Amino acid sequence: MNFDLVATCSGSSARAGKLSTPHGDIHTPVFMPVGTAGSVKGIHTRDLKEDIKAQIILGNTYHLYLRPGLKVLEDAGGLHRFNGWDGPILTDSGGFQVFSLGELRKLSEEGVRFQSHIDGSYHLFTPENVMDTQRTIGADIIMAFDECAPGDADYAYASKSLDLTQRWLERCFKRFSETEARYGYPQSLFPIVQGASFPDLRKKAAAMVTGYESDGYAIGGLAVGEPEQVMYEMIEVVNTILPENKPRYLMGVGTPVNILEAIDRGVDMFDCVMPTRNGRNGMLFTSEGIINIRNNKWMNDHSVIDPRGTSFVDHGYSKAYLRHLTISGEMLGAQIASQHNLAFYLWLVGEAGRQIRLNNFKPWKEEMINSLKRRL
Amino acid sequence: MNFDLVATCSGSSARAGKLSTPHGDIHTPVFMPVGTAGSVKGIHTRDLKEDIKAQIILGNTYHLYLRPGLKVLEDAGGLHRFNGWDGPILTDSGGFQVFSLGELRKLSEEGVRFQSHIDGSYHLFTPENVMDTQRTIGADIIMAFDECAPGDADYAYASKSLDLTQRWLERCFKRFSETEARYGYPQSLFPIVQGASFPDLRKKAAAMVTGYESDGYAIGGLAVGEPEQVMYEMIEVVNTILPENKPRYLMGVGTPVNILEAIDRGVDMFDCVMPTRNGRNGMLFTSEGIINIRNNKWMNDHSVIDPRGTSFVDHGYSKAYLRHLTISGEMLGAQIASQHNLAFYLWLVGEAGRQIRLNNFKPWKEEMINSLKRRL
Repeated sequence: MNFDLVATCSGSSARAGKLSTPHGDIHTPVFMPVGTAGSVKGIHTRDLKEDIKAQIILGNTYHLYLRPGLKVLEDAGGLHRFNGWDGPILTDSGGFQVFSLGELRKLSEEGVRFQSHIDGSYHLFTPENVMDTQRTIGADIIMAFDECAPGDADYAYASKSLDLTQRWLERCFKRFSETEARYGYPQSLFPIVQGASFPDLRKKAAAMVTGYESDGYAIGGLAVGEPEQVMYEMIEVVNTILPENKPRYLMGVGTPVNILEAIDRGVDMFDCVMPTRNGRNGMLFTSEGIINIRNNKWMNDHSVIDPRGTSFVDHGYSKAYLRHLTISGEMLGAQIASQHNLAFYLWLVGEAGRQIRLNNFKPWKEEMINSLKRRL
Repeated sequence: MNFDLVATCSGSSARAGKLSTPHGDIHTPVFMPVGTAGSVKGIHTRDLKEDIKAQIILGNTYHLYLRPGLKVLEDAGGLHRFNGWDGPILTDSGGFQVFSLGELRKLSEEGVRFQSHIDGSYHLFTPENVMDTQRTIGADIIMAFDECAPGDADYAYASKSLDLTQRWLERCFKRFSETEARYGYPQSLFPIVQGASFPDLRKKAAAMVTGYESDGYAIGGLAVGEPEQVMYEMIEVVNTILPENKPRYLMGVGTPVNILEAIDRGVDMFDCVMPTRNGRNGMLFTSEGIINIRNNKWMNDHSVIDPRGTSFVDHGYSKAYLRHLTISGEMLGAQIASQHNLAFYLWLVGEAGRQIRLNNFKPWKEEMINSLKRRL
């Protein structure tokens, strides 16, 4: 998997690049819609490609492993064949989901034993079987299995956790190198930088992952409760160490402003459930600011959803209609808002890339952030 | 509103026709997707038009009156402007919904007093204000306000109810003739034939409605619990009396087989929530038979949803994937199944029209019904 740095930007660490995968090229910076259980909630595959113009989507190993399960995915010929998305796919390792289970999971050196949130059945994730699982799912990019420490972890916990993540990473790479891709195209394994909110742990983790030859590197364990400034500081610390010539993926982040700040600090890849989850709750992100479509003020606003929007939903429906659908609990409301938000995220990150190539990212970003923070 | 009979069929009362409305021509027989609260659940307006090829959709007066309410609809310039559907719209009168409220409504000569299912507030529907409400919603075809007697009503109840419906119909036409369309295009009022399962009451009702000059006539109060053969008999009784040169609309019916049987008996227009409601529950209607997509047998069936289907969803997703989405409660599953079912209903009814024009309806129907009844 090849990564070409296409442009950098003065006064900023922002970069534009091109990542070549077995299922097509990805122009970075890139936002990856999250398809938790193999579907981006509320969005047809056709619209992901043609309307939202997604370049790559995510799948969640934890969810896919439980349902539909590996046998079905293997029979289908992998997730691409199963869900009909023929572009690149990235799977997370399931670590984040498993650690979110709280009481339902138990950590050991070997891995994590957990109970399914669906039927209470017991399962064990280890670095080895999570590699095998992601081989079977067949994502182009697969993620290391790590412990994601809580946002308020103290130094002792975070340090011990990082050591475990390190030992697990070694096991991940060992298993990955001993096994082969299942469906005739190569897969890449990205390691993950942990270290909570402690700069020296982050440095240690970044140095550690760069010891592995990889097609890309991820930053995990951020946006889990720490202040935004701390998150930005951690990104800076890590990105001074990660290699320049490989893509950097900030996992699970975040708001449009978070993403622009992270691009400014040299991040290339993003994913987050926010556009779809907040969309389902009636929150729209637009280039003019944030809309809570449930507010009374939109009740008689018959203007289109977003005159500057790139999706067909932006021009095909009014704010008053979307408000009515959302208030009434009509599925179509969730579909429209999710589609708008994803198209907006894709537009925003694509436009950031364009501004980087124009060497105009910094002033554009400052102006854009002012708009993005507005509440309409 | 003009109706041209284009073709009739030997050995059958089936007809093909063209109904011209202010928002475009409708080729009959026609199935009308139901947009209860101003949206066909799970379906983008664009897909209704371009993929499902709906010619006309329904709105429900009861739901639209409560939410978004008449002020919003009036401000928008009517329902077409509000929901972005620029084809013909028909609204039911709210009678059926109001009578479904059970304990929450009280019938009198004046009308029906009822409590909103949303907030318990009190409202009164009368023949007069329901005409006004449908004027404000702005549907091309509006329906008379009637009492829909329960399926198991005895003769005395049904007869008394029919007399009330008759008095209300007079009041509907009076108010309709005294008021004007609101948005610059004319509206048509269809009366409804009631009479439960009693042939003589149905005859009386049919004779009564034909006393009013109207652009079309509806048959209501069927598929409410009576045996299918009784429903077919009532349709036959009524259609011998309704004028040949006007469209006949069978309200709220039904399965694909019901619809073909009713077409055979001279019905032109249909609506039903079955394609979307059953779709949300994982039941698919196809030209080869009925699929319960939740069944284990589809778990590893990676063939497309319906190789003979006309929708993009039929060829873009597999049965195994749709099963997974449905079992997992993913919105996309409901969207795919609803879209498939609606596209199938539209195809089926359109194909019926083609077979009528070929004078081949009867043999085609017999063969098709055998397939439709199959459980796959």
